[in-house]
Amino acid sequence: MINKYSQIILGLDPGLANLGYGVIRKEGNQLTFLNAGVIKTSKKQGLTQRLLMIHKQLIKIIKKYKIDSLAIEELFFAKNVKTASVIGQVIGSLILTAALKKLVVYQFTPLEIKQTLTSYGRAEKSQLALIVKLILRLKTDLIPHHATDALACAICCAQKSPWTKN
Amino acid sequence: MINKYSQIILGLDPGLANLGYGVIRKEGNQLTFLNAGVIKTSKKQGLTQRLLMIHKQLIKIIKKYKIDSLAIEELFFAKNVKTASVIGQVIGSLILTAALKKLVVYQFTPLEIKQTLTSYGRAEKSQLALIVKLILRLKTDLIPHHATDALACAICCAQKSPWTKN
Repeated sequence: MINKYSQIILGLDPGLANLGYGVIRKEGNQLTFLNAGVIKTSKKQGLTQRLLMIHKQLIKIIKKYKIDSLAIEELFFAKNVKTASVIGQVIGSLILTAALKKLVVYQFTPLEIKQTLTSYGRAEKSQLALIVKLILRLKTDLIPHHATDALACAICCAQKSPWTKN
Repeated sequence: MINKYSQIILGLDPGLANLGYGVIRKEGNQLTFLNAGVIKTSKKQGLTQRLLMIHKQLIKIIKKYKIDSLAIEELFFAKNVKTASVIGQVIGSLILTAALKKLVVYQFTPLEIKQTLTSYGRAEKSQLALIVKLILRLKTDLIPHHATDALACAICCAQKSPWTKN
C-alpha cells in the first residue's frame, strides 16, 4: 500500500521534436522508477498540431500514473531568440496543461539539476546518466538521453521540493 | 444578419504582464471593431497561475465573441534568451488554448503586420495606431497601445488569410 506521503513526479526535458519524460515515485527517501520515454512530433505538422499532440500525450501520462507534480527543465541556454522562443512555447503549453490538471509545477535549471544529483555543477552528460541509473536502480542502458534528462529533473525535484503546494 | 462568410478574428500582442487583445469582424472587405483591451497579470503571482489566468480570460473572450481565428504577433526580437523564453511560454499557452477550442491559429511577424497595413515595413508605432484607427473607424484615442498592436495583428490576418482551415 502506498502511504500518504508518496508522491508521483513527472520530469520533462522540453523539446518540440523530442520531449523527454520520466515518471518516478518518492516514498520517504526511496525513489522508484515508473516509466520514461520520448514524445515525438513531426516537422510535417504545424506548430499548433504539435503542441496539441504533446498536450494529449501528457494528459494520458498524468492520468495513467496519477501525477502529483511536474518538474520541467528550464531553458537556460539557446542558440538564438528563435530557438528560445520555440522551446518557450513548448514549456508554456506544458505548464498550462499541468495547471489545468491542478498539478504543482517546478522548474529547475540544468545547473541546479546537475548540482543536486552530483554535487558538481559541471558534470558530463554521461556521468549524470550513470547517477540516474544508480539512484533509480535501473538495469538497462536503453533509456534515450532525453528521457534520462527528464528523470534527472524528476529526481532533482524529489530531492529539493518541500511538497508544499503554492 | 451575419452572412456565412463573416469571420471573427481575435488578434493578440503576447506579453506576460500586459497581453493586448483586439476583436474584429470581417464581412467581405468590411472590417468592424468589436472590442479591445489588455489582460494584465501580477508579478506577485507565479508563472503557472499567470498563464492559467490568461488562459481563462482568453476562453471568456473566445466564447463571448464566438471567435473563429486567432492571430498572434510572433516574437521577432528579444533582449535576451530569458525574455524570448518567457514570451514564448505565453505564446505556447495561447496556441494550446486556441487548439483546445479548435480555432485556426495564424502567426505574423511585426514586419508582416506593418507591411500589410502600411505597405511600408518601417512604419512608426504612432503611424500604425493611426491606420488601425482609420481602418476600424474608431472615434477614441483611449485604446492602450498593446490593444492597438493586437488590433493591427487581427487586421493583418483579415487581409492575408485565405480562410482555409488547416
